[in-house]
Amino acid sequence: MEVYLIRHGIAEERAHNIKDEERVLTKEGRQKTEKVAQRLVHLDFHFDVIVTSPLTRARETAEILIASGLSSQLAESSHLSPDGNIQNWLTDWLEPRNYPQKTQLALVGHEPNLSEWAEILLWGESKASLVLKKAGMIGIKLPEIGSPLGRSQMFWLTPPKYLL
Amino acid sequence: MEVYLIRHGIAEERAHNIKDEERVLTKEGRQKTEKVAQRLVHLDFHFDVIVTSPLTRARETAEILIASGLSSQLAESSHLSPDGNIQNWLTDWLEPRNYPQKTQLALVGHEPNLSEWAEILLWGESKASLVLKKAGMIGIKLPEIGSPLGRSQMFWLTPPKYLL
Repeated sequence: MEVYLIRHGIAEERAHNIKDEERVLTKEGRQKTEKVAQRLVHLDFHFDVIVTSPLTRARETAEILIASGLSSQLAESSHLSPDGNIQNWLTDWLEPRNYPQKTQLALVGHEPNLSEWAEILLWGESKASLVLKKAGMIGIKLPEIGSPLGRSQMFWLTPPKYLL
Repeated sequence: MEVYLIRHGIAEERAHNIKDEERVLTKEGRQKTEKVAQRLVHLDFHFDVIVTSPLTRARETAEILIASGLSSQLAESSHLSPDGNIQNWLTDWLEPRNYPQKTQLALVGHEPNLSEWAEILLWGESKASLVLKKAGMIGIKLPEIGSPLGRSQMFWLTPPKYLL
């Protein structure tokens, strides 16, 4: 199984009159995310399911990917919110769904979570060693058998600027 | 300092009548490497120095990068050969040169060395967790002060297919 960790696009700044979970993508954030999505389409990407954090800026990012034709399935998981835990996502969300081996999943979420999840998948622990920019992505292959924690392989990590 | 680890392109197969260190790039290997180089030029890359393993397939790859205009400086380091060691490269090659902070270095070499070097830079040890394809590359930022071992950050890892 391949899992693509995608960080949401550029969103409006934090402010005391806006709830963090309701911050929306800026115009620039939408445009850049659309360009990234178009490049992924050009590279023949297709995801069986796009799973998004419930926060607005992540959901809007996921909706742009869907609108570009990168997937027809959108799901939500609270484990992808900023305080989500990968172990819980694996046991509560991924394992019960029993996806076939060839499944390509895209997860849209936040930093520092996503790069920490990637490190935990690769090395079993996180040392803040990966840089994941907004609208950037990480591609990871999970092992066919057994726990993916500390046993997965990374084949892609890119900032959006190399996809424009 | 940014260090780009670049794996040589597709080379002719091992055979009893060819010395491993003299294997050359195939026609397909040359073409794919040239396309990757062109894409890097398009993305505004420029390396202050390209350092190559002394083996023919690495040197030919480095020469394609130079011919594309990605750098005007070609150097060789035996530490980049398949049995090279990153600690020795750091102490014997990099440190004596005392490059300025903003230097962008490209290292052309072999697997599994390069992805092991990347893991040692990020986490201090290697677990074969990174997949680096032929003519693919890894981008790593070294810390400004102190040893880079276990203290560097990766911002890019790409197979050539996403650069064509």
